[in-house]
Amino acid sequence: MGRTSDANERLVATAAELLHARGYASVGVEALCRRARVRKGSFYHFFRSKHALTLAALDWHWRRTREQVLDPAFRGDLPPIQRLERFFDLLANVQTATRKRTGQLLGCPFGNLSGEMTSQDPRIRRKLRQIFHGIASYFEGALSEAVATGDLPRIDPPTNAQALVAYMEGILLLAAAENDPALLKRLGRKAVQLAAVAAPDVRGIPRVR
Amino acid sequence: MGRTSDANERLVATAAELLHARGYASVGVEALCRRARVRKGSFYHFFRSKHALTLAALDWHWRRTREQVLDPAFRGDLPPIQRLERFFDLLANVQTATRKRTGQLLGCPFGNLSGEMTSQDPRIRRKLRQIFHGIASYFEGALSEAVATGDLPRIDPPTNAQALVAYMEGILLLAAAENDPALLKRLGRKAVQLAAVAAPDVRGIPRVR
Repeated sequence: MGRTSDANERLVATAAELLHARGYASVGVEALCRRARVRKGSFYHFFRSKHALTLAALDWHWRRTREQVLDPAFRGDLPPIQRLERFFDLLANVQTATRKRTGQLLGCPFGNLSGEMTSQDPRIRRKLRQIFHGIASYFEGALSEAVATGDLPRIDPPTNAQALVAYMEGILLLAAAENDPALLKRLGRKAVQLAAVAAPDVRGIPRVR
Repeated sequence: MGRTSDANERLVATAAELLHARGYASVGVEALCRRARVRKGSFYHFFRSKHALTLAALDWHWRRTREQVLDPAFRGDLPPIQRLERFFDLLANVQTATRKRTGQLLGCPFGNLSGEMTSQDPRIRRKLRQIFHGIASYFEGALSEAVATGDLPRIDPPTNAQALVAYMEGILLLAAAENDPALLKRLGRKAVQLAAVAAPDVRGIPRVR
């Protein structure tokens, strides 16, 4: 058993890892404690339940996603649209690295848990919703700036940002089902164009009615 | 207990419903039998395991998705691009109806299970992959026809079809997290424009480098 002072951190990081790879229901408190090298008594000292630990693990993933992907991608050293491209590149790189290490592309920690939990747990659903809004706000910032500089045509940044979050979740889900990081690169390239999609009558985008 | 001859069907339909709403790990054989009004002995007469029943339940959802959404949406009575719009409309209607009945928008039965299972179960992953390819083939047919009739510019139908599957999964995931059917309508409208996204140098779609 490791030092008790680290037990909290080890539990959160272990839960984050197991929830990402195996979902909520299949991960038990016993297995979590064993893997984190923490006594069950310590677990309940820090967390009231697996549910409480799950919310902490989602915070952990959210902090890490910002530090490793969102903040570096959306730094102001590039024009806004290129930041968006950098984001989808970084996303592909992170997933490719995980696949090299584990043999399996894991997809999005938020999207994976969302599929299992949103319809049965309102607190986890609310937490995931907040995180999706958090991701959207990075996209929206870049889109608004691109509209202001004239790099993008007349679009509605909040709606297009949400469309981009959906697209990002979808390509991560498909890439996991295919276990194919190349899919992330191939489909990620279309994200910028989805970002530019405006009302149907904007020139050059085909009208269909 | 109902008639044994229906037991197989009842088990599959019940599993399909529970897996959609609650995922794989949290649904036990006992609960399945109770809800389907089937004896445990009958369960094991028809299915070797919950895993085997899950594969059958995915087939059930796939048949139903084709009958209720894909086949009616992609009938040849409309031009191809309008079939695609009809698909996203039907999708929103089906999810809205479920939400009215259950209070919760459930999202995609394939996407939900995908998030939980792809990284830990190769057979379920392969089955889901086949289904995603099946959905893509409907999209691809419509896109190829739209290119042939000149309704769409030069695009790569297989890639754009896969992008549309990703987008569809993503908006279903987000709509479930928000429990908001209006999101499906709002973001669904952009699907047709994503379908039309070609190489970055096609006229009218902004170049970013």
